[in-house]
Amino acid sequence: MSVTSPQGFRASGVVAGLKSTGAKDLALVVNDGPSFDSASVFTANRCKANPVLWSQEVVKDGVVRAVVLNSGGANCYTGPEGFQTTHAVAERVASSLGIGAIDVVVCSTGLIGLANDREDLLAGVDAAHSALAAEGGPDAAAAIMTTDSVAKQVHVEGAGWSIGGMAKGAGMLAPQLATMLVVLTTDAVVGAADLDQALRAATRVSFDRLDSDGCMSTNDTVTLLASGASGITPSLPDFTQALTRACSDLALQLLADAEGADHEITITVLNAATEDEALEVGRSVARSNLFKAAVFGKDANWGRVLASIGTTQAAFDPADLDVAMNGVWVCRSSTPAADPSTVDLSGREVTVTIDLKAGAERATIWTNDLTHAYVHENSAYSS
Amino acid sequence: MSVTSPQGFRASGVVAGLKSTGAKDLALVVNDGPSFDSASVFTANRCKANPVLWSQEVVKDGVVRAVVLNSGGANCYTGPEGFQTTHAVAERVASSLGIGAIDVVVCSTGLIGLANDREDLLAGVDAAHSALAAEGGPDAAAAIMTTDSVAKQVHVEGAGWSIGGMAKGAGMLAPQLATMLVVLTTDAVVGAADLDQALRAATRVSFDRLDSDGCMSTNDTVTLLASGASGITPSLPDFTQALTRACSDLALQLLADAEGADHEITITVLNAATEDEALEVGRSVARSNLFKAAVFGKDANWGRVLASIGTTQAAFDPADLDVAMNGVWVCRSSTPAADPSTVDLSGREVTVTIDLKAGAERATIWTNDLTHAYVHENSAYSS
Repeated sequence: MSVTSPQGFRASGVVAGLKSTGAKDLALVVNDGPSFDSASVFTANRCKANPVLWSQEVVKDGVVRAVVLNSGGANCYTGPEGFQTTHAVAERVASSLGIGAIDVVVCSTGLIGLANDREDLLAGVDAAHSALAAEGGPDAAAAIMTTDSVAKQVHVEGAGWSIGGMAKGAGMLAPQLATMLVVLTTDAVVGAADLDQALRAATRVSFDRLDSDGCMSTNDTVTLLASGASGITPSLPDFTQALTRACSDLALQLLADAEGADHEITITVLNAATEDEALEVGRSVARSNLFKAAVFGKDANWGRVLASIGTTQAAFDPADLDVAMNGVWVCRSSTPAADPSTVDLSGREVTVTIDLKAGAERATIWTNDLTHAYVHENSAYSS
Repeated sequence: MSVTSPQGFRASGVVAGLKSTGAKDLALVVNDGPSFDSASVFTANRCKANPVLWSQEVVKDGVVRAVVLNSGGANCYTGPEGFQTTHAVAERVASSLGIGAIDVVVCSTGLIGLANDREDLLAGVDAAHSALAAEGGPDAAAAIMTTDSVAKQVHVEGAGWSIGGMAKGAGMLAPQLATMLVVLTTDAVVGAADLDQALRAATRVSFDRLDSDGCMSTNDTVTLLASGASGITPSLPDFTQALTRACSDLALQLLADAEGADHEITITVLNAATEDEALEVGRSVARSNLFKAAVFGKDANWGRVLASIGTTQAAFDPADLDVAMNGVWVCRSSTPAADPSTVDLSGREVTVTIDLKAGAERATIWTNDLTHAYVHENSAYSS
């Protein structure tokens, strides 16, 4: 149930001294082959951190042999010095493994504008290399936590092959990836082009549908490594389906651990003219602070849902919208229907269903409520 | 210092029994002429309340003789019954004044999906008609308050003419108008076409630049009435300038009274390629819950500013952005500059200055911080 569950991988998580708490803060995941195919996706934010700028070059040839990740500092907007730090970390990983630095993905998370001490990082790499183990996945998952309350890991079994994964993220979860570092591993035999196709299909309906607080990070990275160690080549649909399951599982773990959230909200938009319009409508509701504060207050405030829908360009008749919360249709044809006070919002899971009556497409967006704890955590903690 | 400060207007504010508190909840503003020229702008939300649907028809010929406004219920998504209520209110105002209902603008604010009792409203109109007075402006301003903590009024003097105004709004302030009802009056002699041009110019740089919480209301209405009672015809630039001053003054009063806010944040984007791009960048920062929570925590978190800028399509070099907070340049060329802890965020007023270095255009957006009180007020109060 970790990145080392599939065959052909070792990992470790160690204390490099970057976190003031003294907790584990540096992780290393190594693909021991025989194949080194990979695929990656990165944040759509134009302001990218140094590790992202580096790793975008690394992944271009489809070959990745190791991923090194640190928490305790995002290495974002730290200038040329910061980029050199990323480069030096990749070089140290490469020399310890006898590979090229251009095959080493680097990920960092933590405060923007904070440059980590390079010597601490390099000593951490040495320690992580020494600690590499076929059972090291859980240690690696622990080392990438920031405000996460739990480590996020996954394992999905195929027929003689499997997919493992770990993720870090707890807020700033919004579209085109969250503040989120994800490493996925598989021992299936899959070439880089197919990995890329499968990864884009899987992230499109999992991580890309998370919209915790509308804020997009500078450091997001998802890297998928295939060792081929099982010797088995699954069909691309089978592999994509398993990968989608792994990504969705991790995405829902991220959602459930969002900073300060009291509710996980699943917004499903039905009968849209296009899937993009369904997504636009879902995101508009997921971005409404007024609606999200109402959910925190256990108030089935469908008026705030309609007010959000009305800000979009999607096709619909403003006089003929239906809205349900937790299965209760509180609004039919844009007029009050069931009594909102009959909607039980005491549990963590909330569903919002919107019927646009404009077509046959649908989409689901996941978000959280807006709570006192969110404000507290994000006003007291710099990230 | 009210809508009745200019000559030719009477107003009143009475208790119609719509608010459970027993406070004033119905206002009437009447233009006694000799001219009845007007201009109006409405919410850009496609989900519009019944009073907006009605009033959009009323204003088409440029003639408005009265505005009736109620708090205690938005009359939005209340179905055909709700539209008939709006129509009945306009008819009652018209018959009491001996004018046509098609010259009566109706505005409502309060909970979406709540239909006010029609008889209460009509009795309120009768009481408001009886109470009409040339000194009634302050009563009218009080009657349109919802979560507002203070009444908002303005008076700007021209050369022998003046502009008066009142506004209601305290949150849900976002672009293309906030949850905001505004009535502006003038005794200048200005035709409907010029009023329209002046009003669009004034709102574009005032109400449209407010982005308190990114949420757009269903009921926003700004109506400008010109009585011509001064007999003086100002130049259009002079009138536009005074009107812009009146609108900006009211907009800043709305900002200062935003629900639960601790800080008023002025975001100025410099050296953008176009004014629209400056606005896009300013709004992206104004919409960042992470940044707004940081301001509440008195944390000069410029990393969250850069992360927001990076989500836009504006022209800039991600490696060459400057950011100042309260005049302290905490980020130069996308690297750390002055120590963020030297920025004093203890006062209510916060400035953020962003230099895109991509052109010569600029724009300013006003927003608020994200506070515990915002979450409390919007989770405990249905609107």
